[in-house]
Amino acid sequence: MSKSIYVPLDVPKDQQKTYTSNFKTITHESGRLMLFAGDQKIEHLNADFFGDGIHKDDNDPEHLFRIAAKAKIGCFATQLGLIARYGADYPDVPYLVKINSKTNLVGTSQQEPSSGLLNTVEQVVRFRKSSGLKIGGIGYTIYLGSEAESEMLSAAANAIFEAHQNGLVTVLWIYPRGKAVKDEKDPHLIAGAAGVAACLGSDFVKVNPPKKEGASSVELMKEATLAAGRTKVVCAGGSSVDGEIFLKQLWEQIHIGGCAGNATGRNIHQKSLDEAVRMCNAIYAITVQDASIEEAVKIYEKK
Amino acid sequence: MSKSIYVPLDVPKDQQKTYTSNFKTITHESGRLMLFAGDQKIEHLNADFFGDGIHKDDNDPEHLFRIAAKAKIGCFATQLGLIARYGADYPDVPYLVKINSKTNLVGTSQQEPSSGLLNTVEQVVRFRKSSGLKIGGIGYTIYLGSEAESEMLSAAANAIFEAHQNGLVTVLWIYPRGKAVKDEKDPHLIAGAAGVAACLGSDFVKVNPPKKEGASSVELMKEATLAAGRTKVVCAGGSSVDGEIFLKQLWEQIHIGGCAGNATGRNIHQKSLDEAVRMCNAIYAITVQDASIEEAVKIYEKK
Amino acid sequence: MSKSIYVPLDVPKDQQKTYTSNFKTITHESGRLMLFAGDQKIEHLNADFFGDGIHKDDNDPEHLFRIAAKAKIGCFATQLGLIARYGADYPDVPYLVKINSKTNLVGTSQQEPSSGLLNTVEQVVRFRKSSGLKIGGIGYTIYLGSEAESEMLSAAANAIFEAHQNGLVTVLWIYPRGKAVKDEKDPHLIAGAAGVAACLGSDFVKVNPPKKEGASSVELMKEATLAAGRTKVVCAGGSSVDGEIFLKQLWEQIHIGGCAGNATGRNIHQKSLDEAVRMCNAIYAITVQDASIEEAVKIYEKK
Amino acid sequence: MSKSIYVPLDVPKDQQKTYTSNFKTITHESGRLMLFAGDQKIEHLNADFFGDGIHKDDNDPEHLFRIAAKAKIGCFATQLGLIARYGADYPDVPYLVKINSKTNLVGTSQQEPSSGLLNTVEQVVRFRKSSGLKIGGIGYTIYLGSEAESEMLSAAANAIFEAHQNGLVTVLWIYPRGKAVKDEKDPHLIAGAAGVAACLGSDFVKVNPPKKEGASSVELMKEATLAAGRTKVVCAGGSSVDGEIFLKQLWEQIHIGGCAGNATGRNIHQKSLDEAVRMCNAIYAITVQDASIEEAVKIYEKK
Amino acid sequence: MSKSIYVPLDVPKDQQKTYTSNFKTITHESGRLMLFAGDQKIEHLNADFFGDGIHKDDNDPEHLFRIAAKAKIGCFATQLGLIARYGADYPDVPYLVKINSKTNLVGTSQQEPSSGLLNTVEQVVRFRKSSGLKIGGIGYTIYLGSEAESEMLSAAANAIFEAHQNGLVTVLWIYPRGKAVKDEKDPHLIAGAAGVAACLGSDFVKVNPPKKEGASSVELMKEATLAAGRTKVVCAGGSSVDGEIFLKQLWEQIHIGGCAGNATGRNIHQKSLDEAVRMCNAIYAITVQDASIEEAVKIYEKK
Repeated sequence: MSKSIYVPLDVPKDQQKTYTSNFKTITHESGRLMLFAGDQKIEHLNADFFGDGIHKDDNDPEHLFRIAAKAKIGCFATQLGLIARYGADYPDVPYLVKINSKTNLVGTSQQEPSSGLLNTVEQVVRFRKSSGLKIGGIGYTIYLGSEAESEMLSAAANAIFEAHQNGLVTVLWIYPRGKAVKDEKDPHLIAGAAGVAACLGSDFVKVNPPKKEGASSVELMKEATLAAGRTKVVCAGGSSVDGEIFLKQLWEQIHIGGCAGNATGRNIHQKSLDEAVRMCNAIYAITVQDASIEEAVKIYEKK
Repeated sequence: MSKSIYVPLDVPKDQQKTYTSNFKTITHESGRLMLFAGDQKIEHLNADFFGDGIHKDDNDPEHLFRIAAKAKIGCFATQLGLIARYGADYPDVPYLVKINSKTNLVGTSQQEPSSGLLNTVEQVVRFRKSSGLKIGGIGYTIYLGSEAESEMLSAAANAIFEAHQNGLVTVLWIYPRGKAVKDEKDPHLIAGAAGVAACLGSDFVKVNPPKKEGASSVELMKEATLAAGRTKVVCAGGSSVDGEIFLKQLWEQIHIGGCAGNATGRNIHQKSLDEAVRMCNAIYAITVQDASIEEAVKIYEKK
Repeated sequence: MSKSIYVPLDVPKDQQKTYTSNFKTITHESGRLMLFAGDQKIEHLNADFFGDGIHKDDNDPEHLFRIAAKAKIGCFATQLGLIARYGADYPDVPYLVKINSKTNLVGTSQQEPSSGLLNTVEQVVRFRKSSGLKIGGIGYTIYLGSEAESEMLSAAANAIFEAHQNGLVTVLWIYPRGKAVKDEKDPHLIAGAAGVAACLGSDFVKVNPPKKEGASSVELMKEATLAAGRTKVVCAGGSSVDGEIFLKQLWEQIHIGGCAGNATGRNIHQKSLDEAVRMCNAIYAITVQDASIEEAVKIYEKK
Repeated sequence: MSKSIYVPLDVPKDQQKTYTSNFKTITHESGRLMLFAGDQKIEHLNADFFGDGIHKDDNDPEHLFRIAAKAKIGCFATQLGLIARYGADYPDVPYLVKINSKTNLVGTSQQEPSSGLLNTVEQVVRFRKSSGLKIGGIGYTIYLGSEAESEMLSAAANAIFEAHQNGLVTVLWIYPRGKAVKDEKDPHLIAGAAGVAACLGSDFVKVNPPKKEGASSVELMKEATLAAGRTKVVCAGGSSVDGEIFLKQLWEQIHIGGCAGNATGRNIHQKSLDEAVRMCNAIYAITVQDASIEEAVKIYEKK
Repeated sequence: MSKSIYVPLDVPKDQQKTYTSNFKTITHESGRLMLFAGDQKIEHLNADFFGDGIHKDDNDPEHLFRIAAKAKIGCFATQLGLIARYGADYPDVPYLVKINSKTNLVGTSQQEPSSGLLNTVEQVVRFRKSSGLKIGGIGYTIYLGSEAESEMLSAAANAIFEAHQNGLVTVLWIYPRGKAVKDEKDPHLIAGAAGVAACLGSDFVKVNPPKKEGASSVELMKEATLAAGRTKVVCAGGSSVDGEIFLKQLWEQIHIGGCAGNATGRNIHQKSLDEAVRMCNAIYAITVQDASIEEAVKIYEKK
């Protein structure tokens, strides 16, 4: 199932091998990305990690690393600081550094959303070198339609260019948000977001599944995956739902919607280590190993 | 029809050959520019690429590159990221990197328009070198009369100076916009915009066709093309209209209005590849080959 | 009672010895931090140093240094400028440079809280080298939930990375504050703050003790100390209270709440030198020497 | 009539010859400056160049260069970009680069006036070197009393220091403007502006002629020319008036008001080339050659 | 009366001699500073230099230099640009460069006070070197309690550190000001300001004399001079008052209030050269030569 890898031209010759190697590592040569998202300790504070319906292990940040190490994943995305603290004990995990983050304390009605740069690509490159960790890429979130959109588009374009210059793979998270955005899930807007990612030169873009009265979300997704062109679209895991339904959605996002993977966080780490690992493996099976829904459910439910 | 090329003095001696070569490439030694504009995936999101009246091929970003490769054009203007992703397969296209962009989500009544820098000229120069692509210039949009005008004038002046220092040709898009602008198409204001481009030292400036009750737009254009002096004015292709009318306008903008070309996007890429190529060739014929309207229409309509 | 030291991976190999040495110095190889906070001359102006109930010696900044030199402490945290002025006479004190500060003149209802960088880590490193002082770390305050949160998260992440790159230990002070924050002491929010510190890669984070109607503060603290993972939580000394009650709280924060120390300012320096030294030693006994409450009270009360 | 030249001490030794040479060139060793101002294509857009009462040649930017080349002037001040485009054909003109500019679209009641930096002094120095043009100085506009005053004072002080470091002469334009400014022509305020220029270290400052009910403007000017000390005050040419009146004012500004020259734009370039040249020569005669009003009028009227 | 000089530890070894020499020069080895303040041409525009009750010589900026050269002073503080223009003729004056300034046009009720950096310390150091002038230090003004406080605290801390790194002495002017400041002269607040200066590491801080109903200002000053610790407090000369009263105040500020000098401007330069020199010498006698009030008055009144 190995696919040829397209190396974008802002990756200079002497970094093409690194880029290809990083791309292969996080896609397992499938061309698809199973991204385990673990940046919510800033994005959602402790609400995603402690409370009703969340396994008690999840309040320990190491839970994320244990899952990432034990399960089959494409890459584990989180902030540099957290990787620095646990990475030595989990050296085989393929990491993706989320370079910007914000909390959810200040609402959109109070202030237009903006997410500040925590680390520069240059720092990530220094960190990759001195730590020896498998850091394959960087991630950046854009709130499209925010009054601060301009700063984020600039930062994202710069980060992608410099990441590619250093052989790193890039993932954008693009969420339309702000006073100007009436419907964050509008299919046309989601497709627009995917197209923005293409123009910014990102390798992957994570968007939320589009929604429209009376239409199927995976069908609507097609506009976005086409608009993204060679930039691969991965879809959101979203809030916790029933395992089987969740896996079915993923399968359809890939096989009907044209997605090249998914980014899942809470649906994995809010479970016990054992269940989380099985969920990862099930997602991985669909994404990377082209498994059927039934096969994936079997992996997840094998208790 | 070859014309002598004026090399501005901020192009240093050791870059004059590069500048001249770039200028010749994108003008085909005609002194006129046929610019194929393909930056709308950020500027207008997916509205220009998917929907009623738009050929379904247009939702694939590669459509733009296919047109640019197959048709006669001066240069294809789009964002660096998109060029990086497709350029290897379209190495013969002459590119112009649009270095700033914004979406249209936040309206002028909500926030004064401002368009952030996606890439620095230094990055464009690094990209040109490592990619080996024919990158002949850079483009920048200014919203004159916006409360953020000052940042944009600064960024534009800097970009033009540094582009010239590196032998790159420059194109400004100047649109009067913001609370302070009562009539964006006022001929005097359009002429002012053209004059600003001259003072900023740009090689080309794209302005919208002026409008005034009871006056012909191409006649009104003369004030602007005179005010621009040696900075060449190219005119907007604007929203889709009937092919023949469109070509007639272009011809008049050049031969009556004093324009040195045009920048056309939607009127090209919203068509099928075949029709888009014919439209390009027709525009090219008028702009670069000094064809008559009839000759151009013939090129466009040859099915 | 010596504990192994975890060196985060953003400390490069050639700085690991320095980091370990700094960590050992300020924790006395206990893994716990007794931080003597002396940054209030900016934070609270002269209100903490002069007035009713405050020993008259406290109005002389040297009072802080006399305590720090004579008592058992982990480190003395204050601004670089003050250290530069007294450090030569107190060369054996382990210092931690507080790199940002604000006064309390402008209230949160007038302006969202933000604390500007006084010195860069690079300046601290230069200062450490040329002064020869025992500068073991840096401190930074974040007002989580402020509209200026983004600037502070960025500055903190950068400072921590660069501090680690230079072998310095880091302490964050994280206080939820701003219009968006309804309850600054909410346990879930305090735990979120601790988790943010973990993601930013800080070695220590100081938070305020959580509060909730009908629940014990030290019990509530557990959520935060777990959420922080390997980032150690130190608790606030807060405003002056009875010595014995204060020491009991500290003991419980460590042994029940899971804290790894405390940061105490006013409860120390508002006393006479002799009493301040005894208070320090009592806190130190609990924090670093694992003393019981009774032993600590005895140390404090030995007159 | 040659006067000794005072070289300010921020001109380093190895640049003193360059500074002296530049100063001599633009003052023709008279110690007085006849500045031909041609930056209005940004400042006033096309209103100064096209319309009733303006010679039709003025809409071509080259008109400015033709005048500057053919007439006797001290220096021709305009933006770098325009100089880069025409300078090769007008190599003997002494240029002064206006490094900041704004349009007049956004009024003071909408936004406090601020004028962004178009080019850094470093760019001007690079341009001077690679172009070989006679670039003798830089100009900068400050809106004193604007809420953005702080940014402009900073930029001006920096530009002057760096210009002097590179042997360039400096001219400030200081106009009190903004909500806080009740009377832009108040003599005390104009004198204050002149004093600010002195503190910023500028060689020349252009201010508007002061006005006060029942007082003569040239008499009022004395406060300003004294307050400026060794910084030389040049006066505004202002809007077009009758030639003889205009020349009489200039003569009085110098011989009564204590000015060291003038900055004139519209009163020159809105005329035909021939008349503009005669007007320049008349102004030059008064300013540099110490001609009487009658002699100057004769020069202007010789048809 | 020579006193030992405390060299702060942010002065590196190779600059300690320079620092000591600068400190000795401006204090004449008395440990006290008589600062002749001449930065008001920006701060107060021409109101301090021209008008009723002001000697007519004061409108010439050279008046300041004549006084500084002829009288006994510690240092003459003004902007770099002014020093550059007159310094060559007054090479023996000890200068202190005021690196930030604002005008008083925009009131506090319109905009929170902020004073922009005119020159960096690096520029001052370059200027000191190339000019050969006796530049002994830098000065910076902070408006504590302004919404822009954060930017000013940052700039001040940076300037002090870099000044010390280059052997320059530092003086802060700290004035509580802004909407949040109810009483600018509150003794507790003035003491807080002095403490802030200590934390920023400044050598000297100028504050306004505190005021409180029913209390003596010099008595109230003690809280501030104690709070400042080793940072020396100099007091404001303020607006013009009777000479004898003024000198008595200065004496008491030093001998009762604990001040280490004063900063006086208008009370000196608004007088004729002769009287200004006598006033300087009288102030100098009290400050540096420990003269009695009577001796000082005698010096001032000797006509």
